[in-house]
Amino acid sequence: MIFRQLFEPTSSTYTYLLACEDTGSCALIDTVVDTTERDLEMLQELNLSLDYTIDTHIHADHLTAATKLKALTKSKIIYPHVCQLPCMDIGAKEGEPIRIGNIELHPLFTPGHTDHHFAYLLDNGTQQMVFTGDALLIEACGRTDFQSGSAEELYKSIHTKLFSLPDDTLVFPGHDYEGRLVSSIKQEKQRNPRLGNDRPLHEFVDIMENLDLPYPKKIDFAVPGNEDCGVCPDNVPEELRAPCEINDQG
Amino acid sequence: MIFRQLFEPTSSTYTYLLACEDTGSCALIDTVVDTTERDLEMLQELNLSLDYTIDTHIHADHLTAATKLKALTKSKIIYPHVCQLPCMDIGAKEGEPIRIGNIELHPLFTPGHTDHHFAYLLDNGTQQMVFTGDALLIEACGRTDFQSGSAEELYKSIHTKLFSLPDDTLVFPGHDYEGRLVSSIKQEKQRNPRLGNDRPLHEFVDIMENLDLPYPKKIDFAVPGNEDCGVCPDNVPEELRAPCEINDQG
Repeated sequence: MIFRQLFEPTSSTYTYLLACEDTGSCALIDTVVDTTERDLEMLQELNLSLDYTIDTHIHADHLTAATKLKALTKSKIIYPHVCQLPCMDIGAKEGEPIRIGNIELHPLFTPGHTDHHFAYLLDNGTQQMVFTGDALLIEACGRTDFQSGSAEELYKSIHTKLFSLPDDTLVFPGHDYEGRLVSSIKQEKQRNPRLGNDRPLHEFVDIMENLDLPYPKKIDFAVPGNEDCGVCPDNVPEELRAPCEINDQG
Repeated sequence: MIFRQLFEPTSSTYTYLLACEDTGSCALIDTVVDTTERDLEMLQELNLSLDYTIDTHIHADHLTAATKLKALTKSKIIYPHVCQLPCMDIGAKEGEPIRIGNIELHPLFTPGHTDHHFAYLLDNGTQQMVFTGDALLIEACGRTDFQSGSAEELYKSIHTKLFSLPDDTLVFPGHDYEGRLVSSIKQEKQRNPRLGNDRPLHEFVDIMENLDLPYPKKIDFAVPGNEDCGVCPDNVPEELRAPCEINDQG
């Protein structure tokens, strides 16, 4: 398997490449339209064929490159099955692994940040790796105050679907805002200030209700754009249109 | 491959199990005599045969279980070849991989914390993992003020042998005092406060010279004990003799 963890600095998003060396098939988890060219160059350099783009959820902080990459590489767009979007090709469902060559990726329904969020578990035979999207972050978690988020649901998702994985499972988050790249289930169970040390639900809910976070500056165009699998909607502000222009040239 | 990261809380030491599932062979990196029974139970539970105990260096903060485990399992003791200790069975050398069933472990000579320190690199076909001992720690590094340590040497070792590994290489340290378990080369290149962000050598040396660390409380018996591959010397204080007694019962 070839694995790459890539970073988009404006939204602090991690995009993950999972590729099967035997077949040349690959998938990208959580692409960002701003870094489409970087991703394409990587695929070319590694001589890989992009089977799927996988979005863990409908992002509010960046536009996915799913449609752009589909236009350029014929990749199929995977979104959570509950989204039922006309633009998606495959709906991810728990219990229905995604096959990327010899790799099996297991969707884990983990609502709470949004009501449709999926994490993805990979067991490469050595070690489990879980791509936690915006459910569990390193020493943090996704916010729960928009897109039908729910602190109770997120707590339940993290405890039943993620903290129940083996302690050595590597945690690869959807974002990090402080330059951290990887953690483990044990590390988060111990150190996560919101969820670690067996913090009870009511304390977690209290923390999440009092985060006092700013209104996400891209949400008004990112959510409708991502509901269209990354096609830029008309309301993208002029100063943020550059990725849309890249899209148009595709 | 079976991989386990185990923690000994008194010395905050991580012991690593690397096992080949096909052959049942395994090795333990940096054992602690206090947790010999835990390690033996794990080997039994996983039905593994211990081929090697590997010490990254002559530890000053705990006694290795190398001799104890050898007596109980017939494992061979691997120490850095430069140590030339009568009790060791194999001297680790750079360029001479250690074979554990189908696993190849590559010794990397990384002096600086001590003048004989080795890190170990594993490429499991998916992802590289490096066991950095006390050379590179998560957001820290080993001290350089005893056992022929040298800040200049450590800087050189980390830059030429560790920071030159692929960015996605997972970093598994010999210790962590704050509950962190794993990092990556990229993360340390970015975030390590002593070495990250291309900090120049003279600044690193200055940091290391001004750490003002306490005298290590076990060094006076741990170093001679580990030069004997973990046999407790006579000068172990009464209140710290419990692991020696376990040893004697073996």
